[in-house]
Amino acid sequence: MQEIERLIQLLARLPGLGPRSARRAALHLIKKPDTLMEPLARALNEAVAAVRTCTTCGSIDTQDPCAICANPERDTKQLCIVEEVADLWAIERTGSFPGRYHVLGGRLSALDGVGPEDLNIASLVARAANDGVKEVILATNLTVDGQTTAHYITERLEPTGVTVTRLAHGVPVGGELDYLDDGTLTAAIRARRSL
Amino acid sequence: MQEIERLIQLLARLPGLGPRSARRAALHLIKKPDTLMEPLARALNEAVAAVRTCTTCGSIDTQDPCAICANPERDTKQLCIVEEVADLWAIERTGSFPGRYHVLGGRLSALDGVGPEDLNIASLVARAANDGVKEVILATNLTVDGQTTAHYITERLEPTGVTVTRLAHGVPVGGELDYLDDGTLTAAIRARRSL
Repeated sequence: MQEIERLIQLLARLPGLGPRSARRAALHLIKKPDTLMEPLARALNEAVAAVRTCTTCGSIDTQDPCAICANPERDTKQLCIVEEVADLWAIERTGSFPGRYHVLGGRLSALDGVGPEDLNIASLVARAANDGVKEVILATNLTVDGQTTAHYITERLEPTGVTVTRLAHGVPVGGELDYLDDGTLTAAIRARRSL
Repeated sequence: MQEIERLIQLLARLPGLGPRSARRAALHLIKKPDTLMEPLARALNEAVAAVRTCTTCGSIDTQDPCAICANPERDTKQLCIVEEVADLWAIERTGSFPGRYHVLGGRLSALDGVGPEDLNIASLVARAANDGVKEVILATNLTVDGQTTAHYITERLEPTGVTVTRLAHGVPVGGELDYLDDGTLTAAIRARRSL
């Protein structure tokens, strides 16, 4: 049973899987050795070998520079700042941003002891100063830490003279006012636009 | 990105992980190649190689017969019938059952087209008739299909003469009556015991 226990323990370390769901996942894998367990093992090994961090933007890809940084059709004048690669993927899925990205690798957090030197901020300032960047779009999360990070980056970017913008805040598309938190509603009222 | 996409697709096939949580799990793995991704790949490969189904009880283990069937200290007179290996593990965690198990590998389901020949029922009847079994404890789930399966097995075991029992139904330990469903409460009242 040692091999099964070890598999369950490792699966339980994935985000979203607790001890119980890790057991269910392990049993599911064991039931499908040829169609799921063995392919997953191979996919993990291939990912270990292939994945690297882009030295330009901090995203992950199987090439360095990553496909976005290497794509000559992406607008070099716009740089979107995100906390994590998952945020970059979320924006890419919308297909609405033509520029490039910079992945911070986290957010400033006094509580977790994350300072500016722990994030890709120095490389961001260098890019903003040199790479012909005109606009930096802050897409950090709307949490206290995310907003602190955005403030800090705005200050650090001031000497470079680039325009700094942030994502609009307001009512989500399809959102019902009655179910919205007060903070979002307040932001939406303050940022109201004339029709 | 192909390697990453493939990893996400495979992770999304695990129970409890949707497309979004599979992406989060993949990123988590990629961030920890040495401490998580590579060990998980190895654990999967080792499990593929080591895990086998017990030909006696239908459980899974790294040995056949499994550790429970091979253990001479387990009571051979009691046989507990469960639908899945996960149910066996749940009962084993309680440490309150000294006997052996028989894993059906599912439940009878007209809707899903699962008939008696798809489950380990013939081998159960053979075990009950030959192995010195005195009592068969039905621990199938309290669903319609689980109860149908229990009924069917009871009928099939009738010629063998073994005693057939089932798990008690009633108020869960720590459960509050007010939050309990009517069916459980009815079962608890019917099965009331004198103090």
